[in-house]
Amino acid sequence: MTDKIALTPKTHTTPPAKFSHGVRKGNILQVAGQVGFLPAEEGKPPTPAGPTLREQTLQTLANVEAILEEGGASWEDAMMIRVYLTDVDHFAEMNAIYNEYFEGRVEIPAARTTVYVGLPAGLLIEIDALAVLS
Amino acid sequence: MTDKIALTPKTHTTPPAKFSHGVRKGNILQVAGQVGFLPAEEGKPPTPAGPTLREQTLQTLANVEAILEEGGASWEDAMMIRVYLTDVDHFAEMNAIYNEYFEGRVEIPAARTTVYVGLPAGLLIEIDALAVLS
Amino acid sequence: MTDKIALTPKTHTTPPAKFSHGVRKGNILQVAGQVGFLPAEEGKPPTPAGPTLREQTLQTLANVEAILEEGGASWEDAMMIRVYLTDVDHFAEMNAIYNEYFEGRVEIPAARTTVYVGLPAGLLIEIDALAVLS
Repeated sequence: MTDKIALTPKTHTTPPAKFSHGVRKGNILQVAGQVGFLPAEEGKPPTPAGPTLREQTLQTLANVEAILEEGGASWEDAMMIRVYLTDVDHFAEMNAIYNEYFEGRVEIPAARTTVYVGLPAGLLIEIDALAVLS
Repeated sequence: MTDKIALTPKTHTTPPAKFSHGVRKGNILQVAGQVGFLPAEEGKPPTPAGPTLREQTLQTLANVEAILEEGGASWEDAMMIRVYLTDVDHFAEMNAIYNEYFEGRVEIPAARTTVYVGLPAGLLIEIDALAVLS
Repeated sequence: MTDKIALTPKTHTTPPAKFSHGVRKGNILQVAGQVGFLPAEEGKPPTPAGPTLREQTLQTLANVEAILEEGGASWEDAMMIRVYLTDVDHFAEMNAIYNEYFEGRVEIPAARTTVYVGLPAGLLIEIDALAVLS
């Protein structure tokens, strides 16, 4: 019998609907789709880092990491990372940023799927993750 | 050693291919992508609720819930809900319906990712879910 | 306390970024998004089977299976299969190939979600999978 807990880093803006930024139950941790919003500031609407793919990607990864850490996990526990891009032409650049970010941060990288979808205006990337804790 | 079981609510239409509407193995329950098909009627092809996003979304959520329940789970066990919309302009309306639906139905909401993809003609929304039972 | 291991079949081309083709931790196995690349040949860039949807789909399923097997799992352990197609008009044909492939290969089929997204040029299908081992 394990309890489900919501993971809500202080840096995160309020979700736009009744969902949790992350949840953990037993050793399973799920991170909701994160985008490149800068740390929340009271009275300000959510604002993406930008305008480049690089800034948004790094902020998105930081937002995912904050939720993993809030649940007592790290990138090493991540099993699957789902990357949603809006533009196929961003694949090579995203990969370069991704590699640079994870260099030294993880010994056994998570699996990954990258697909190209629509996202709300101004957003170039969205990432979610599934982790299994030890 | 746990057995995998298929979850097939009586209300559901036959899947269009060799997949299960849901499966459970041990404490992990996976719901396949559900759309807003009305309860199956013998001799009738699958028919979506509609024509509005509201009708399709509520029917889709009911279809997901039926599979969770078939596996002995509830929304409270849901860890991740994936929402696929066909139109970015439906985001706000879907969120309003989503919030209204989950109000009172769940204490700790699941994580969620929403992306905009293509779906077969006539379908405005598809939802799948991962649950971890206690 | 379980260790995460990377699953890297010898037949597979090197991933284009710092991710694993598959990972297993305890009884959870995640397969990264696979496409229809033919078995790797030294000195040659990744080349998709083709040009038909049939050839790509069967190669993609073989690539997923190789990772499941590398982790000591089989299709019977698969809980969720995510299919990404680029063209809604491919749905019926993909289903026919999918059914034929799984006929006799699995007793209780995995759940599945199929959505229509963008993929890199030349790729018609991508598939990933989540498995829970007994």
